[in-house]
Amino acid sequence: MSSQFGQQLKISIFGQSHSEGIGVVIDGLPAGEAIDLDAVQAFMARRAPGRGPASTARKEADIPRILSGLYEGRTCGAPLCAVIENTDARSGDYAAIADMPRPAHADFTAHFKYGGANDVRGGGHFSGRLTAPLCFAGAICAQILARRGVTIGAHAATIGTTFDESFDPLTVTAEELKSIAKKDFPTISDMSAEAMLAEIEEVKTRGDSLGGVIECFAVGLPIGLGEPMFGGVEGRIAQAIFGIPAVKGLEFGSGFYGSAICGSENNDPFTMDGDRIVTTSNNHGGVLGGITSGMPLVLRAAIKPTPTLMQEQQTVSLSGGVDAVLPPKGRHDPCIVPRAVPVIEAAVAAVLLDLWLESGDFVRGV
Amino acid sequence: MSSQFGQQLKISIFGQSHSEGIGVVIDGLPAGEAIDLDAVQAFMARRAPGRGPASTARKEADIPRILSGLYEGRTCGAPLCAVIENTDARSGDYAAIADMPRPAHADFTAHFKYGGANDVRGGGHFSGRLTAPLCFAGAICAQILARRGVTIGAHAATIGTTFDESFDPLTVTAEELKSIAKKDFPTISDMSAEAMLAEIEEVKTRGDSLGGVIECFAVGLPIGLGEPMFGGVEGRIAQAIFGIPAVKGLEFGSGFYGSAICGSENNDPFTMDGDRIVTTSNNHGGVLGGITSGMPLVLRAAIKPTPTLMQEQQTVSLSGGVDAVLPPKGRHDPCIVPRAVPVIEAAVAAVLLDLWLESGDFVRGV
Amino acid sequence: MSSQFGQQLKISIFGQSHSEGIGVVIDGLPAGEAIDLDAVQAFMARRAPGRGPASTARKEADIPRILSGLYEGRTCGAPLCAVIENTDARSGDYAAIADMPRPAHADFTAHFKYGGANDVRGGGHFSGRLTAPLCFAGAICAQILARRGVTIGAHAATIGTTFDESFDPLTVTAEELKSIAKKDFPTISDMSAEAMLAEIEEVKTRGDSLGGVIECFAVGLPIGLGEPMFGGVEGRIAQAIFGIPAVKGLEFGSGFYGSAICGSENNDPFTMDGDRIVTTSNNHGGVLGGITSGMPLVLRAAIKPTPTLMQEQQTVSLSGGVDAVLPPKGRHDPCIVPRAVPVIEAAVAAVLLDLWLESGDFVRGV
Amino acid sequence: MSSQFGQQLKISIFGQSHSEGIGVVIDGLPAGEAIDLDAVQAFMARRAPGRGPASTARKEADIPRILSGLYEGRTCGAPLCAVIENTDARSGDYAAIADMPRPAHADFTAHFKYGGANDVRGGGHFSGRLTAPLCFAGAICAQILARRGVTIGAHAATIGTTFDESFDPLTVTAEELKSIAKKDFPTISDMSAEAMLAEIEEVKTRGDSLGGVIECFAVGLPIGLGEPMFGGVEGRIAQAIFGIPAVKGLEFGSGFYGSAICGSENNDPFTMDGDRIVTTSNNHGGVLGGITSGMPLVLRAAIKPTPTLMQEQQTVSLSGGVDAVLPPKGRHDPCIVPRAVPVIEAAVAAVLLDLWLESGDFVRGV
Repeated sequence: MSSQFGQQLKISIFGQSHSEGIGVVIDGLPAGEAIDLDAVQAFMARRAPGRGPASTARKEADIPRILSGLYEGRTCGAPLCAVIENTDARSGDYAAIADMPRPAHADFTAHFKYGGANDVRGGGHFSGRLTAPLCFAGAICAQILARRGVTIGAHAATIGTTFDESFDPLTVTAEELKSIAKKDFPTISDMSAEAMLAEIEEVKTRGDSLGGVIECFAVGLPIGLGEPMFGGVEGRIAQAIFGIPAVKGLEFGSGFYGSAICGSENNDPFTMDGDRIVTTSNNHGGVLGGITSGMPLVLRAAIKPTPTLMQEQQTVSLSGGVDAVLPPKGRHDPCIVPRAVPVIEAAVAAVLLDLWLESGDFVRGV
Repeated sequence: MSSQFGQQLKISIFGQSHSEGIGVVIDGLPAGEAIDLDAVQAFMARRAPGRGPASTARKEADIPRILSGLYEGRTCGAPLCAVIENTDARSGDYAAIADMPRPAHADFTAHFKYGGANDVRGGGHFSGRLTAPLCFAGAICAQILARRGVTIGAHAATIGTTFDESFDPLTVTAEELKSIAKKDFPTISDMSAEAMLAEIEEVKTRGDSLGGVIECFAVGLPIGLGEPMFGGVEGRIAQAIFGIPAVKGLEFGSGFYGSAICGSENNDPFTMDGDRIVTTSNNHGGVLGGITSGMPLVLRAAIKPTPTLMQEQQTVSLSGGVDAVLPPKGRHDPCIVPRAVPVIEAAVAAVLLDLWLESGDFVRGV
Repeated sequence: MSSQFGQQLKISIFGQSHSEGIGVVIDGLPAGEAIDLDAVQAFMARRAPGRGPASTARKEADIPRILSGLYEGRTCGAPLCAVIENTDARSGDYAAIADMPRPAHADFTAHFKYGGANDVRGGGHFSGRLTAPLCFAGAICAQILARRGVTIGAHAATIGTTFDESFDPLTVTAEELKSIAKKDFPTISDMSAEAMLAEIEEVKTRGDSLGGVIECFAVGLPIGLGEPMFGGVEGRIAQAIFGIPAVKGLEFGSGFYGSAICGSENNDPFTMDGDRIVTTSNNHGGVLGGITSGMPLVLRAAIKPTPTLMQEQQTVSLSGGVDAVLPPKGRHDPCIVPRAVPVIEAAVAAVLLDLWLESGDFVRGV
Repeated sequence: MSSQFGQQLKISIFGQSHSEGIGVVIDGLPAGEAIDLDAVQAFMARRAPGRGPASTARKEADIPRILSGLYEGRTCGAPLCAVIENTDARSGDYAAIADMPRPAHADFTAHFKYGGANDVRGGGHFSGRLTAPLCFAGAICAQILARRGVTIGAHAATIGTTFDESFDPLTVTAEELKSIAKKDFPTISDMSAEAMLAEIEEVKTRGDSLGGVIECFAVGLPIGLGEPMFGGVEGRIAQAIFGIPAVKGLEFGSGFYGSAICGSENNDPFTMDGDRIVTTSNNHGGVLGGITSGMPLVLRAAIKPTPTLMQEQQTVSLSGGVDAVLPPKGRHDPCIVPRAVPVIEAAVAAVLLDLWLESGDFVRGV
């Protein structure tokens, strides 16, 4: 079992980079929910390749075809399956991979795990392309959550050495979160976008690549989603986020920084805000004891630099059992961070809806 | 469902800080494994309170009683249940919590999630005390893994602003990892230990607290543990690690740092080492595409500073619906990081054994 | 993984017949539910040995000790663990089993599955004794369901060749169901009880044993529990019921009989009963398409005759690899059906509460 | 969550009778297994409609299109997704169902569970048509099991009041099991086939329908598949079998009959057969304590008569809240039992392969 997460809401992703199609089955959606497919398409477009200089040259329509689960435009209680055909695929580009595993890719581990039977074309099932169906699923979950007052939004917090501004984790609003999705480049500050694009352009020239950090917020959450210990919100989100290729780190609230300051600084005092109990700072990132506190959810995911380079790289020949040199090849994003922003949102949306449904589509208020 | 993780090997933890007992059920252990209970006890002693100035004054024997799952000293295929009695518990200390949630604790979220029915004594099920049975389970898993050539070891990489040295992630050995467990304070460098203890002592004087980062390694892993996407090693470990109270961040290999460097620096080239394929650096932390590469597993978990302080803190009165001041109270560790080191090892051991068993207790070599 | 079932409500059973203790962890109970422990004890007493001529001579108090999960008499959101000590156990009785597997027991399969490491004393983890903690869990679930209007009750429908009367599956009431639990022998007809006891007494004289069929009803269920296909009520109940030792068959509604009649006879017509839609017969046993219909749930479980006999039986010597004769030995029920009646109720209660919680502790009415 | 089963091998079925497509995702297949798609097609043809007088007039090619999971004709470790397009669907036939639930169908329960949002066309997700992808999955699992020496075969043991002969449960062979699949009508005795067809033809004349019992065997199983209690082979198979529409009963070995005889008759003595330990009868149906004994697996599933009739039936009008008469309508099998035979095989194959993989694709022999 591998490509699935969720408890009440199960999301199963299938496909390889160059198989006939890729897609997703979403089992457990509440019935009767109208789905705005244009909004789903707009969400997916944020992930689609070919939007700017940071992107691969591969262009795909990526229009998902919905095979099941909808009836007269609404979810009908049956599992929803959507398929994206793989049309613009050039298998020839990947021939050498079968023998020469690309550094920092899954080629090597997949080869040995599957005894050489894995689909080597374009990374097979390990391809970043598999995040397209995840975005499809997340877009649907986000719509259903929006109807319940929850809004999710992410931005490129860093790319390489360039930082974006951030929202105030205490006061961030749904409108602020929605504003990023409308931009061509997913930053809060337009100056940061320019600087990031310049840094990407610079490494691209050298045939090199960049990673970064994606910060994601969710507002409008009730108190009480999540379970203690291993059923906590952080662990549940982590399982989904670490399922996204290239993610190597994840933190909530003050995270690693918070581990270096004193308790008196890191603790978030409670106070009354009218009838509501709130915290006066948000180092806990909206989760205490694994359970949502009603404050904004705040998390950051570290994305490693794109492993495929337009440079020679040292590797081995599996058949020869000798060292070998991988030539610069392929048409890859020098930085996938901008395209990964909606993917992170999608994973968070799917987990939050799952948690919401587990709480009976109803949560106690204060 | 909450306090459970694992697929083939299910670990269910139960108990509250002040309930009659706490414990664990481990379902799915391979049969016929001899268990060295002295070694289990020694492992648990590393987590036990009362070992030094960083620790709470509460002293407990914490001798687990094994109710089932062993027969003539070996695992017998039946679920193993161990119980630790709660003996030295002073409920009175915690009376005010029912009305005044402690900042950065689960008191607040638990109160609303459970409609006021939660056990407020000592944090109830959210208490760090629940990591004792996790250590018990991890110690057993570590023994079984050791028999298969896998060694796990962690150290306090940082406490507050003090750093420990680290092992070379490429060449770290089982012997190096084992050496930390023998020390009174879990650092590689004894000078770091002294500095950390001094920093802890200093904040304690002020009634304040510290957090830190725990770094954990595993060596001897085969190629091929883990599954693609949401079944990956990182996600599986994350679910367990984020189930440990106070963990707010997690990274593998170069993690967040790796997201700021170029692909040419972060990629780990492959090379032949005799008949074996290895990498010449270990930024991937032993996991590529969710699957173990045969290189050392490297991860770091961020532990927030202990929320309970010997200072006044601002909170609210739940009954009054007004702001309130929480008096300095309790007997708590100003820094739980040293005691959390074996807890992180335990979670990693449990997940690795689970993954090992899923791979059929047998994994393809190169 | 083995001894666990449930989705939202996870029930994990541990222990061996002669281990230090046996018990159960119930994870996912709704918080704030008052638990009447006397009623739990009364429920368990119906399963306890030593109540009549059909029973083994082994007498045990079987008072469960609750280690966690309750606070001030109510569920508190934390996993509830209960332990029953094993006190009256004579290991010596079972020495030969290690070498001579008892026909129709798990001795043989356990020996080979666990490579000889299994606990052979009294059947180890496969003992019927493990149904005591299941009864504990079921008794608690039944109380919580009762508060929501659901009542469960079972009776010994057949023992050997003797039949009990049945309730009308269309009109059976909560009061009728409750009436059985008060009897010494769990039949509807007292004459059947006498005949069954006579039949049991007769086979006992010959050192032989009997099985039977247990019929179970649940009334007060809403429309809408359960999911399509593999998440259906029947499959979910089946997994729990087949987890009870000695169960070899299960049917719902008209079951096997219904497979031999025409559709026009087996179909249950709908009609209005005031504002409510009901069926005019109940061959579907309260489940259509895996989902509760609001009509009484009806199921029957086949219990095989007790395998242990006071007769010589043919078996093999595992050490010698030769045929052997198992002497008549042990102190066993010639018929476990009466004691299994509450066990079936318990399994049904646990699954129904799990399904209820998955539906958000709230289900749409007509 | 609903339409999914399995632990290591997850099978997720999607689609509605009249949605654009139906299909299955199989996650967890061992990699490197060659798949004979012609054999898969032949397996599915046994379930396909339109083969004889017992069948619906609806004819469909039901050629599955494989979107992922295969590479160069072999499983590649990625989830395998297959889609069957819905081409020959006449939605108009089902218009009245939205208001008048068909007796013994899921129309009624689905309507209330999903608040009227369910897809009413042809039974939606509850349609027997959803067993086509299950057959696809089962055919693949059966091929992989065959390579490991396991053969599965089923027959129509009864239809209405007509019985088929049976195989000897002690000595049944792979060749015997394979022989049924080659026949037009899935019985052992050709005379029984004729009698069954005559009985079906007779009820069809009256616009009525029939059910029956399907008996399934598996030979070549090792000792040791399955887990104790709720992880047992019977419960695992039951969850899959009860997920098949129209199944209302299930028994293993002597099942219900065995519950009426004495232990001395029902117990299966052990004896040496050369170096192998076997039983001299097979009332246990190949499973003891939830674990395979190495003897043939024997089970029987009760299939209720087709609910749709060419007769008027009493029902209600949901909109009017009044009694109503459902006119005879549709094009349905008067008896689905023959077509359900491979479906039962498919479910058994999927569970057995799952259990096999959980045992590490390797099982201890005697």
